[in-house]
Amino acid sequence: MADSAIQMDIPACGDNEYREIAWGIPKFGEKFQPIWINRPKVGDNDVKFAMKYCGICHSDCHLGLNHLGGSMYPMVPGHELVGVVTEVGSKVTKVKVGDNVGVGCIIDSCLNCGTCKGGDEQYCEGGGSTHTYNSMKTYGHIGGNQETQNFGGYSASNVVHEHFVIKVPNDMPLQHAGPIMCAGITMYDPLRHWGATKPGSNMCIGIIGIGGLGTMGIKMSKALGHRVVAISTSANKEGLAKQKGADAFVVSSDNASMAAEAGKMDLIINTVSAEHQVAHYLSLLKTNGTIVQLGLVPQPHSISQLPLIFGRKSVAGSLIGGIAPTEECLEFCHKHGIFPDVQEIEAKEIDWAWDQLTTVNKDGIRYVIDIEKSLKSDFVPSQ
Amino acid sequence: MADSAIQMDIPACGDNEYREIAWGIPKFGEKFQPIWINRPKVGDNDVKFAMKYCGICHSDCHLGLNHLGGSMYPMVPGHELVGVVTEVGSKVTKVKVGDNVGVGCIIDSCLNCGTCKGGDEQYCEGGGSTHTYNSMKTYGHIGGNQETQNFGGYSASNVVHEHFVIKVPNDMPLQHAGPIMCAGITMYDPLRHWGATKPGSNMCIGIIGIGGLGTMGIKMSKALGHRVVAISTSANKEGLAKQKGADAFVVSSDNASMAAEAGKMDLIINTVSAEHQVAHYLSLLKTNGTIVQLGLVPQPHSISQLPLIFGRKSVAGSLIGGIAPTEECLEFCHKHGIFPDVQEIEAKEIDWAWDQLTTVNKDGIRYVIDIEKSLKSDFVPSQ
Repeated sequence: MADSAIQMDIPACGDNEYREIAWGIPKFGEKFQPIWINRPKVGDNDVKFAMKYCGICHSDCHLGLNHLGGSMYPMVPGHELVGVVTEVGSKVTKVKVGDNVGVGCIIDSCLNCGTCKGGDEQYCEGGGSTHTYNSMKTYGHIGGNQETQNFGGYSASNVVHEHFVIKVPNDMPLQHAGPIMCAGITMYDPLRHWGATKPGSNMCIGIIGIGGLGTMGIKMSKALGHRVVAISTSANKEGLAKQKGADAFVVSSDNASMAAEAGKMDLIINTVSAEHQVAHYLSLLKTNGTIVQLGLVPQPHSISQLPLIFGRKSVAGSLIGGIAPTEECLEFCHKHGIFPDVQEIEAKEIDWAWDQLTTVNKDGIRYVIDIEKSLKSDFVPSQ
Repeated sequence: MADSAIQMDIPACGDNEYREIAWGIPKFGEKFQPIWINRPKVGDNDVKFAMKYCGICHSDCHLGLNHLGGSMYPMVPGHELVGVVTEVGSKVTKVKVGDNVGVGCIIDSCLNCGTCKGGDEQYCEGGGSTHTYNSMKTYGHIGGNQETQNFGGYSASNVVHEHFVIKVPNDMPLQHAGPIMCAGITMYDPLRHWGATKPGSNMCIGIIGIGGLGTMGIKMSKALGHRVVAISTSANKEGLAKQKGADAFVVSSDNASMAAEAGKMDLIINTVSAEHQVAHYLSLLKTNGTIVQLGLVPQPHSISQLPLIFGRKSVAGSLIGGIAPTEECLEFCHKHGIFPDVQEIEAKEIDWAWDQLTTVNKDGIRYVIDIEKSLKSDFVPSQ
């Protein structure tokens, strides 16, 4: 995909910007280097925070390696940012200096359309949400040079409009908070939207795919009091799934295993991002049940509408979650001690971590960059 | 499909049965004849009613002509029954002699499972609902000879367990009531289930297919106060759609026409029963929108999950409706003067009407058999 990569060199730092340390990919195909980037100075509605940790999401690799085309370089990935507020604009009311905050996958949206006003900024109908990196500035809520792209969380600090700053509970271990704003909310939001966070809803929830997302989904669904059925193509995932709290385990390639749980599930959340056919799982749903697809699989699914009609079943999709639901998710995870399994690394190990993510299948482990430690290393840009 | 037709001759009338006049297809491939059938005598929980009208549904033709295989003969079709109560069992509390009643597509279900208890008897999870005709007796709520199939509403009377008897408002024109229990509830139930009957819901509703179902959907959606967009492959349906109350019209094969309504609809109800691809319509949905498929199209649909994920959209199905929602639908239609466009015929014209339905596309006209008039004709069985 080299042809489709976009090279945009970083201009000189403007008066409305400051220079900051980051770790980025200078050009398509290159390894990570310490680089200088420009960040916007704090405007009236902005929050500046010193980065403590940034989680590494598998989608960072897809964008950094230009798997989807159109990636912009230099690229500083990272949409699982956690830090401590160091400065706030004059009109900021949401947080104060010293508060723990996070930023997830989006840092701007129109804030005027029905979905933004309804707390679903990720689906902004005013022109789409603006991503935390590999995205141009769009709606004017991000300061600095408007002709440059956004840089993500593999960096020493960031400045974000308060609307998109997420409050992190004060006593939450910060190294775990980052992945909750991506993997966590990706699982929590469909549970919330399809009624599973309502007290007493007492559902049977299926979770397909027992990786990083799936294990979070199992833990959350159990904490909400539901019966949880883990579903995988691999029989050898049963131990992991049950260790995380699953009440039952289905091997989806085994007809008898599927039949034992047929017609039992109110909601299935499907985390599989490899090619598959969603129709295979419809028999597991109860009447009125919904299967929610999360994985961005480009191949279309072949779906007969007969099982949908004869059971009032639905096939739906879901994408991360809005700002308020993300805060709700952080509170929920904190209250119930639900954390992703993380492994801390330094910035100089990002290339190694990406290799792990793209070649080795280490189930459920989230790599998190310890920013403070990385800044003390020699893997920082020269002046 | 002659091979798959099932011939079950009618046994002698049992002590727990009575003989009744009906119009049926004696053997696969034959025309309609006046015949004698056996009906159960009234049990403790049963309601007997003299038939006034029976609507003719297109699915009568599919079953009568054995298009789906496994049809049972002699067949007496009809699942849009309307009549007046003539006798009730000792434990019946729902209706009394002289009340107007109807029976729709189902006359039994387990009444014990979650969906039955939740008022969705059509999705009975205890073993499926029992159809008004071309279905064997199943759960013991239907009296008479348990080894014989059910006969439908092309007949002079019927006896049905009170649970499956639908109260028809007293001053409702009975010739219009029958089709509401099939076409009406088929449109009303998805409106109800997906929130469109909630006061103040103020939605934009798309109706695909401007035939008998579609025109009912347009009228209902308008009466509920929604903006209604009619959608058809045929530009020449615009006049009919707008006459029935549509605010806007989309020609689905015209990109500009589709683009003008893109992203506007909260709910689309798709009545198309010819082969089509549901994916074509997803762009019309708003974020959080649902498209509900009603047509029993056997060909699978090819659906990319990307538009589902990026707009939290759903593809769902819906099948008629339960007993209480059907009563609610009748009240609603009566209150708002929403009636299907019907043409009354006599029993001797059933073959003609079926020819019309299977060969001519007379939009929105429902043929209804005037039972009383037919009983006075010479098209009745000899003693």
